[in-house]
Amino acid sequence: MTEATTVLVVGLGLIGASFAKALKLAGETRVLGMDADSDVPAKACELGLIDQAIYDVSEIGPVDVVVLAVPVMAIETVTRSLSSVIEQATAFTDVGSVKGEVVASVERALGHLPRNFVPGHPIAGAERSGVEAAKSDLFKNHMHILTPLAETSDDALSLVSRLWSDCGADVVTMSVERHDEVLAATSHLPHLLAFSLVDTLARESDNREIFKYAAGGFRDFSRIAASDPTMWHDIFLMNRDATLSILRRFQSDLHQLESAIEHSDGDLLRTVFTRAKSARDYFTEILEQRQKQ
Amino acid sequence: MTEATTVLVVGLGLIGASFAKALKLAGETRVLGMDADSDVPAKACELGLIDQAIYDVSEIGPVDVVVLAVPVMAIETVTRSLSSVIEQATAFTDVGSVKGEVVASVERALGHLPRNFVPGHPIAGAERSGVEAAKSDLFKNHMHILTPLAETSDDALSLVSRLWSDCGADVVTMSVERHDEVLAATSHLPHLLAFSLVDTLARESDNREIFKYAAGGFRDFSRIAASDPTMWHDIFLMNRDATLSILRRFQSDLHQLESAIEHSDGDLLRTVFTRAKSARDYFTEILEQRQKQ
Repeated sequence: MTEATTVLVVGLGLIGASFAKALKLAGETRVLGMDADSDVPAKACELGLIDQAIYDVSEIGPVDVVVLAVPVMAIETVTRSLSSVIEQATAFTDVGSVKGEVVASVERALGHLPRNFVPGHPIAGAERSGVEAAKSDLFKNHMHILTPLAETSDDALSLVSRLWSDCGADVVTMSVERHDEVLAATSHLPHLLAFSLVDTLARESDNREIFKYAAGGFRDFSRIAASDPTMWHDIFLMNRDATLSILRRFQSDLHQLESAIEHSDGDLLRTVFTRAKSARDYFTEILEQRQKQ
Repeated sequence: MTEATTVLVVGLGLIGASFAKALKLAGETRVLGMDADSDVPAKACELGLIDQAIYDVSEIGPVDVVVLAVPVMAIETVTRSLSSVIEQATAFTDVGSVKGEVVASVERALGHLPRNFVPGHPIAGAERSGVEAAKSDLFKNHMHILTPLAETSDDALSLVSRLWSDCGADVVTMSVERHDEVLAATSHLPHLLAFSLVDTLARESDNREIFKYAAGGFRDFSRIAASDPTMWHDIFLMNRDATLSILRRFQSDLHQLESAIEHSDGDLLRTVFTRAKSARDYFTEILEQRQKQ
């Protein structure tokens, strides 16, 4: 391209602000930024994360890419308010963690699914949040999943794919349904189990004294139970079917282990634990290879 | 005491060797060491962890304290083979993670529960194992749970308590039954859930490709699924009743969350997640206070 790509980032929380920062570092991109909190775009300018703070739709000229980095629950409203900007862009994408709900929200907002729409989800995050937590390497060597639709144009897909690659992400594509199944299994269900176990234990004990006796294994296992209750409430309601499906498979498998303990079936316990250890060791290898890149 | 306390440590794996090392650093203690692997005591001598390597019961003179740091499954056999040494010591303790089974093993081996017996369990561990992984600060600011019996003498309890305090541990006492309940909740059940989830996911996917898309939350949650399958097989068979009891409470609570997701009962989800987050934040505070000590 001879001219800089102009990217509008809507929502300058950790993900949006980090994406803006990474884009600016990567090169020839002009980044405009908006946020529901009117103090945030000025702050993002000060921090050098964006080139221009936007406070009203009327200030936005032609942009190549619109990126919504807002909560999934806000996608419909934001898409509606920016519809004129979105419809004229080459590409339109988001970062929401439940793709089925994002796609439905966009369709409700615009009345159709535009050819420039490339739903996306970065598999990255950090414990801190907000514009000041922005990290230019947040996406480096992390997966970025794009879920192009039947309507999606090749131009839109390749442009969005390039921007995330420029930020260091490993871009992969899969269907909306597969994404929501994969995330239900690797993220949503583990969060449900951690929330549930910590709550069971906290209620089991009069005054939480039980946690005094917990060791490092429990610390790691339960860390995700400190996640934002509202965000997770939203995710389970939005990804209901995929979460219920994997949850029920898990409950059935756990019930088998319960029976094995009850009937002292040591062979079954050892078989499952050995298979799980082998799979977890494989996961460790994947993580180590990724860090070496 | 005017003379050094003589301590016999049986089993020089991570826990036994670290205890020996911490005792030596703490001061006036003479440490004898034995191990099922005859190369290990010499290695422990070389590393300065013990004062004397023992290869046969006949080499052991009078000792004040006998510490069994062997797998729980080996307690009965080891206790029987060392019965003469154990019966004449001031105190006799162990480090096993299921106290009910340890107590039953000792009673089977000796035909009675001796007054010098103080069952114990350090809430500490590390990813590495073996004599060379010994760390003198392994127990520092970690809980050490003692479960004295009706038979246990005050002298034995205070001597064992002092040794672990000298190693930097926070010594607490509780009943055998309470210990096994607390550990079922904070350690055994989390391990079962981690093993079970990783196995469900690994079998769900043709070629484990699902793990490629897992993020940091899953990494921490599933770390304990890489634990030793044989050790955990033993633990679930030995702590069957307490594990089944907390597992069933957990399954019932999880079933409520399943219903809430199925019926889009957002209030229940938010209530449980908020309560769990608050309990997990409290646990984080405990951990931070402990690290500051």
